[in-house]
Amino acid sequence: MADRTIAARRSSRRALIPALALACLSALAGCSTAPAARGTGDLGLIIERATGRAQIVDTTQHQRLATVSGLGDLSHASVVFSRDTRYAYVFGRDGGLTRIDLLSARITHRVVQAGNSIGGAISQDGRIVAAQNYEPGGIRLFDAATLKPLADIPAIGADGRRSKVVGLVDLPGQRFAASLFESGEIWLIDASDPAHPKVDKLAAGKQPYDALVTPDGRHYLAGLYGEDGLARVDLWQDPPAVRKVMSGYGRGETPLPVYKMPHLRGWAIAQGEAWLPAIGRHEVLVADTRDGWKENARVAVAGQPVFVMARPDGRQVWVNFAFPDNDTLQVIDTRSRRVVRTLKPCRGVLHMEFTPKGEEIWFSCRDDNRVEVYRTDTLTPVASLPADNPSGVFFTPRAYRFGM
Amino acid sequence: MADRTIAARRSSRRALIPALALACLSALAGCSTAPAARGTGDLGLIIERATGRAQIVDTTQHQRLATVSGLGDLSHASVVFSRDTRYAYVFGRDGGLTRIDLLSARITHRVVQAGNSIGGAISQDGRIVAAQNYEPGGIRLFDAATLKPLADIPAIGADGRRSKVVGLVDLPGQRFAASLFESGEIWLIDASDPAHPKVDKLAAGKQPYDALVTPDGRHYLAGLYGEDGLARVDLWQDPPAVRKVMSGYGRGETPLPVYKMPHLRGWAIAQGEAWLPAIGRHEVLVADTRDGWKENARVAVAGQPVFVMARPDGRQVWVNFAFPDNDTLQVIDTRSRRVVRTLKPCRGVLHMEFTPKGEEIWFSCRDDNRVEVYRTDTLTPVASLPADNPSGVFFTPRAYRFGM
Repeated sequence: MADRTIAARRSSRRALIPALALACLSALAGCSTAPAARGTGDLGLIIERATGRAQIVDTTQHQRLATVSGLGDLSHASVVFSRDTRYAYVFGRDGGLTRIDLLSARITHRVVQAGNSIGGAISQDGRIVAAQNYEPGGIRLFDAATLKPLADIPAIGADGRRSKVVGLVDLPGQRFAASLFESGEIWLIDASDPAHPKVDKLAAGKQPYDALVTPDGRHYLAGLYGEDGLARVDLWQDPPAVRKVMSGYGRGETPLPVYKMPHLRGWAIAQGEAWLPAIGRHEVLVADTRDGWKENARVAVAGQPVFVMARPDGRQVWVNFAFPDNDTLQVIDTRSRRVVRTLKPCRGVLHMEFTPKGEEIWFSCRDDNRVEVYRTDTLTPVASLPADNPSGVFFTPRAYRFGM
Repeated sequence: MADRTIAARRSSRRALIPALALACLSALAGCSTAPAARGTGDLGLIIERATGRAQIVDTTQHQRLATVSGLGDLSHASVVFSRDTRYAYVFGRDGGLTRIDLLSARITHRVVQAGNSIGGAISQDGRIVAAQNYEPGGIRLFDAATLKPLADIPAIGADGRRSKVVGLVDLPGQRFAASLFESGEIWLIDASDPAHPKVDKLAAGKQPYDALVTPDGRHYLAGLYGEDGLARVDLWQDPPAVRKVMSGYGRGETPLPVYKMPHLRGWAIAQGEAWLPAIGRHEVLVADTRDGWKENARVAVAGQPVFVMARPDGRQVWVNFAFPDNDTLQVIDTRSRRVVRTLKPCRGVLHMEFTPKGEEIWFSCRDDNRVEVYRTDTLTPVASLPADNPSGVFFTPRAYRFGM
């Protein structure tokens, strides 16, 4: 009953939000040149991929606060946040790296640092922003306060040629890890002296296409496009070494056509288990992170899974799907390993983001030009925000998490 | 070499900080009535227990920004933060509950809500602040924006009498858990309708004196003063039930005099294991959180441990001690389970707090009137801030964590 009361109250507010959001809500949105004085812990960024813009949103009030344009090509864009959660760093596909002040809704710095780029990371202490580039293949380090270049690390592999770089993440100890696609290597980068980074190079396997780091910063896993299985590095081991795990997880023996290679960053770690999209199959796999990443279970789902995201408490896992099932979201109860709800909320569900304590989830509906907010207990809608072809949704508490 | 360069740079800054910190550094500190526009993700509060004051600090610059006074009796004070990380709620021993605006360094609301109180919590969605009271024994709920009372839950146990309340934590699903000392109960409180909370009551055992919730919000553990062992509730179980675990962990059979009962909130959870202070012994215990909380190991330490805190990546555990060893800190490497460093940084080490990604640790030196900041990789000092009998150190990213 209590739930219904709150849902009703929020629904009535819901109708107001789109209209209000178009007006000027605060010192943000260009109403003033002065930055707004407000907490930055409940802010987020929604990427509007087609127009090179990003919305700044408030996750407490479910409001759009402002829109920032001029961010370049935002297909496959990703975002990291400064450690004070005031600034967002947006990595564009065109190599653009843009620093946005969330309080004044303005671009403070912007560099086009490569020709073709696929994301980045921020160091443990927040002082270094790192970009991973396809063209020219390599990693570049920048001062987080000024975007002044600190170091350029060309990804010249053991084959003597320049590789595309994927799977860049930050690690404890002012380090980064990244993978080289063509040369099949994992690089561990110590950026304690950011002008003179030190690189350890490990042979990973054929064509690593993406990677993740576990939330504790201990295990780096790279998916391999050219062979079955994953390359795993236990960073606590001295010296670190690559082990192959999850044989069968890769493209090599896929019996179904793959509409979209899943992101490894779309894996969930909950209760010591990894929940991950099977490649080309209508299944989510459950692997034991403690015991050699052996498969514990498979859960049948509605389509080819893309992102498999755990609610912060690990009790639920939410799954979205590749075309033609990208109008669907499924919620799995991790205790019973059952799909407990199938939602058809909108067309083109691209990305999901939980509020930090998990009471709500935001997801982008690209083809319906909006972002939806749902409660995670009742699985009912709370708010809907208009957005122009939205893709990624990113909230400031990512500042405190490795690999985010 | 790189490490040494950075350490040297920081050391030179270190000397400047105390002098600067006494001046007025920003729109904070009463220089202006206007709140400062700045990110709130790197702010923290240091309790100055003897004077009823709290310092607002910046963990990026290692600076004191302002001091707020008028907070009442701050012995045993604790702090939670609003979900936008702009406001701190300070629970005083005298029943005072104070809401501080970290941006303007002012008290926005203050109520004296009980005669004798021992802390509080904030709900998953950040809308409800809950206080746990000794006198009169009970739990009170307040609107987080206004401190307007929402509900009063007298802790009248199965014995028909009013108990002291301990171990209050927030849980997923807009719930709280708390323990009743005299009546030996654990209460699970559903605050979905905050004016009409629903309470489930479980028999816990003799005299629960403190409790914790695991970081995933799944397991609630209460320490028992009147018997050996702990009461554990798996909140995923339906209906939840109490199980006794860690027989032998309690006061009942303690062979050594206990100078200070350890806080359960000073436990560390790292890599699926709990690291906890042995009661009355010079040992830290390691228990497996997955397998009935059985003891896996014991690590000999320098004194009676009080707080056992894990660095966010779980690789290190830091331990402080009861008198007469409260001038000592020990660092345990969790992989080898060995003490890797014994520090004697100052007198009266009371409380520790890691920066969110763990590159630094702050700790209070009550008897030397300062707070020290150390790097966690080199285990060397970074900064020192003057403080008047400091006790607790609390950083805003606690806003995103259950039980914090």
